[in-house]
Amino acid sequence: MTDPRTSIIEERMKNINKIIAVSSGKGGVGKSLISSTLALTLSKKGFKVGLFDLDFASPSTHIILGIEDVRPKEGKGIIPPEVHGMRYMSIVYYSRDLAVPFRGFDVSNALIELLSITRWGKLDYLILDMPPGIGDVTLDLIRLIKNTQFLIVTTPSKLAFETVKKLVSLLENMKTRLIGIVENMKMDSSNEIRREAEKLNLKFLTGIPYDSQVEHAMGDAQKLLKTTFARKVKQIASEM
Amino acid sequence: MTDPRTSIIEERMKNINKIIAVSSGKGGVGKSLISSTLALTLSKKGFKVGLFDLDFASPSTHIILGIEDVRPKEGKGIIPPEVHGMRYMSIVYYSRDLAVPFRGFDVSNALIELLSITRWGKLDYLILDMPPGIGDVTLDLIRLIKNTQFLIVTTPSKLAFETVKKLVSLLENMKTRLIGIVENMKMDSSNEIRREAEKLNLKFLTGIPYDSQVEHAMGDAQKLLKTTFARKVKQIASEM
Repeated sequence: MTDPRTSIIEERMKNINKIIAVSSGKGGVGKSLISSTLALTLSKKGFKVGLFDLDFASPSTHIILGIEDVRPKEGKGIIPPEVHGMRYMSIVYYSRDLAVPFRGFDVSNALIELLSITRWGKLDYLILDMPPGIGDVTLDLIRLIKNTQFLIVTTPSKLAFETVKKLVSLLENMKTRLIGIVENMKMDSSNEIRREAEKLNLKFLTGIPYDSQVEHAMGDAQKLLKTTFARKVKQIASEM
Repeated sequence: MTDPRTSIIEERMKNINKIIAVSSGKGGVGKSLISSTLALTLSKKGFKVGLFDLDFASPSTHIILGIEDVRPKEGKGIIPPEVHGMRYMSIVYYSRDLAVPFRGFDVSNALIELLSITRWGKLDYLILDMPPGIGDVTLDLIRLIKNTQFLIVTTPSKLAFETVKKLVSLLENMKTRLIGIVENMKMDSSNEIRREAEKLNLKFLTGIPYDSQVEHAMGDAQKLLKTTFARKVKQIASEM
């Protein structure tokens, strides 16, 4: 039997123009930073933007953006609070105070529940901060929201890119649309990742140099927007 | 009804002196590098060591150690191959060629299956490379192997440490033993993480400076052992 919530999800998403899932092969490559900054940037440009943190195992966009003491409103469904000019939802609202975290089955169930009750309204962009690697959330999302486009994040490290290969192969098997790849925390001018991406037929969007200012901007969205890092993300935003 | 495999797991683990789970609040902090180097170092010291990669979403110790073309032997259970003088098992042996990755329920099931069929034999140390954050594998492992001790890895970043706080609180609620915390990729001499760790009653083991040699040693265990990074890991090994 089909879960009746899956058709509700389609209904909820129908007024969203573009759904962009920011994904990576492994954690710690800056995926949440890029999601948050991309959402902020598109919002500053005047677009209606939603940001949804779906990284169940270690949600962090609320720390990056310094979001505290706001909660979604509950009525007919859930209305995401307005934060820094955009609509913001995170799994952290529902897991922060739990002694025991979500298990696999609950993750799938929580994802479907959250997608079906959240009322985004009309949006130009919905940015999804995905869990790293390949897991339930990625598989469910592809099944539930057909028109999701994936933006892949890596670092120059061989380790990070090896895990990207596996992710890209899965996404291609599942016929999802790949926007391209961003190389974050570049330490030098090597073209290695660009070449490797081209081998995978993956568009190389940009390389972002390591930027020590970012750590000092943690929790401060306005400061974050002034970093070199954010200027590079702005370039990506213009390609969305 | 109890899964009969849980009592088999106890039997399988009874000849292992110390089981050390290397864990982190988020990915990309160097957890797999530290697990791999710790296992190599203990093995070089003459101990009998096993390394088990349990990072289902993005296994990477086989890339770090350059392990290719070896497979566990199947007989009465599974015998891990000898690699670089230690016994090595990874979830990658069972997921590498799958088009569709493990789902939550399968992860739990695969973990129980692998723990119950793997014949480690007599070991001084079994090092477990855990998935980042809080998920099924961590919860199952605590339930299944009572005497597991946790070594926590973080970076100096506020983001990484915030996720550590949540992990440590969970591990303490579940009465697990915490060995201490390692601060990886230190960029300066700040004592911030040491102070924060002490607030959590967590032993600060060492700070490891960022070491650009490590990237060049990727896939080469002997080269890895000669890095400054490895020398710092050796210090931790002497405290195990």
